[in-house]
Amino acid sequence: MTYRKKGCFNSAVVYGRNQVFELIRANKRSINKIMISKTAKGTIISNIVNLAKQKKISIYIVPSKKLKKEFQHSHGVIAEVSSTKYIELSDLTKKLKNHTDQLLVILDSIKDPNNLGAIIRNCVAFNVDGVIIPKWRAAGINETISRSSAGAVEHIRISRVANINQTITFLKEHGFWIIGADNSGQTLEAVNLPPFPIALIIGSEGFGLQNLIKRNCDFLISIPQNNTISSLNASCASSIILYEISKIRKQLFSNLKK
Amino acid sequence: MTYRKKGCFNSAVVYGRNQVFELIRANKRSINKIMISKTAKGTIISNIVNLAKQKKISIYIVPSKKLKKEFQHSHGVIAEVSSTKYIELSDLTKKLKNHTDQLLVILDSIKDPNNLGAIIRNCVAFNVDGVIIPKWRAAGINETISRSSAGAVEHIRISRVANINQTITFLKEHGFWIIGADNSGQTLEAVNLPPFPIALIIGSEGFGLQNLIKRNCDFLISIPQNNTISSLNASCASSIILYEISKIRKQLFSNLKK
Repeated sequence: MTYRKKGCFNSAVVYGRNQVFELIRANKRSINKIMISKTAKGTIISNIVNLAKQKKISIYIVPSKKLKKEFQHSHGVIAEVSSTKYIELSDLTKKLKNHTDQLLVILDSIKDPNNLGAIIRNCVAFNVDGVIIPKWRAAGINETISRSSAGAVEHIRISRVANINQTITFLKEHGFWIIGADNSGQTLEAVNLPPFPIALIIGSEGFGLQNLIKRNCDFLISIPQNNTISSLNASCASSIILYEISKIRKQLFSNLKK
Repeated sequence: MTYRKKGCFNSAVVYGRNQVFELIRANKRSINKIMISKTAKGTIISNIVNLAKQKKISIYIVPSKKLKKEFQHSHGVIAEVSSTKYIELSDLTKKLKNHTDQLLVILDSIKDPNNLGAIIRNCVAFNVDGVIIPKWRAAGINETISRSSAGAVEHIRISRVANINQTITFLKEHGFWIIGADNSGQTLEAVNLPPFPIALIIGSEGFGLQNLIKRNCDFLISIPQNNTISSLNASCASSIILYEISKIRKQLFSNLKK
């Protein structure tokens, strides 16, 4: 994620050493990332770094000039707090327990906020029950994503998890079939989709699923396309797959009123 | 289109009053847009404005400070020259004359460069024979679009036209069926697509076709979706429609080897 310009931050920013330290320690609000000035030193800074690492919060080291320009009294450290309320994965599966047509989408390390926003918009358009994103090495839900999703983030349950592979295991235990979108998979036209509930995994940058995740999938599917260019954009790929799954879902559950 | 920052321009920029005037007059290179400083005055500036209007080139009036910051010797005027070689519409249809499975995509005023890039990427992925974009009130092909298309702009014929409705008439005379993507259309699942050749029109900002264009279409199609949010992103919508058309095209023309 790039460093954003003045005016792009809204109230979802906490700055100052003690404030940020207490924010992490309190563990009450979801933190997207912490930015620390290159020149910042001292016990509290080390404590912040250690605590953030422990809680798996992304840390970005940025030029001190930039930080000073944005927040004169940052004391070398800023935390971007998510204004989105995430739902715990266990709560998400509990809430969906009585549905027979569950469809979840797992996003493995989508870094581009525009892509993440567009994918969440696709999820709402095709009645996905929940989106799962990783806590780190991926974009968190901030106002850029809210904008690029055309406000769709307000209409869907979003869960942040520390480990995608553990999440896959957890979902399998809850009866989910795991489908991975990957170029090496069967083409969408040829594949017989498994029964619901389904969790679809979209990889970063188009179709790149991590190897371990790929091995953990029950099915791999791909979109038949011309190979002149490497692959479709992640949001476009997800829209096609969700459209196809949604067609099958409607046939199976004709009473789907969501 | 927003004013871009220093470093984003490459050699595809011509600046200086006489240079820009001669550039337009020569009519040899395709000009994306002209930016004129708010404070610029004089005969040559008026000549540039008149000539640009005549040739239907977009003119942007920008704060003089911004222009000076980017190009110290701009003399108040900059022209962004497209590095892409456009093809004339008549040449495009001539080249495709012997194909029976022609598929063109017309983009009506897509302003977001990321969307335009992603749509062109979709077009290459689904073997579209050519893309038609309007000369003004839309993004031209520049390096931002080249990047967001993942280089796909190099693999497809692109034509720029002055008037989309005249283009529709021209294509109809050449036997094309015109399909418009619009929320008011028949859903993609229910519609019986016309035979090829087909020209698909994607509207700006998701699904917004202009009224006259809508009336000129032979068919209007929509993507069945949840109505919680207004519509899918234009690039995602185009990917789903192109995927569906591409499936039908493959069934009809099993020898399609492109």
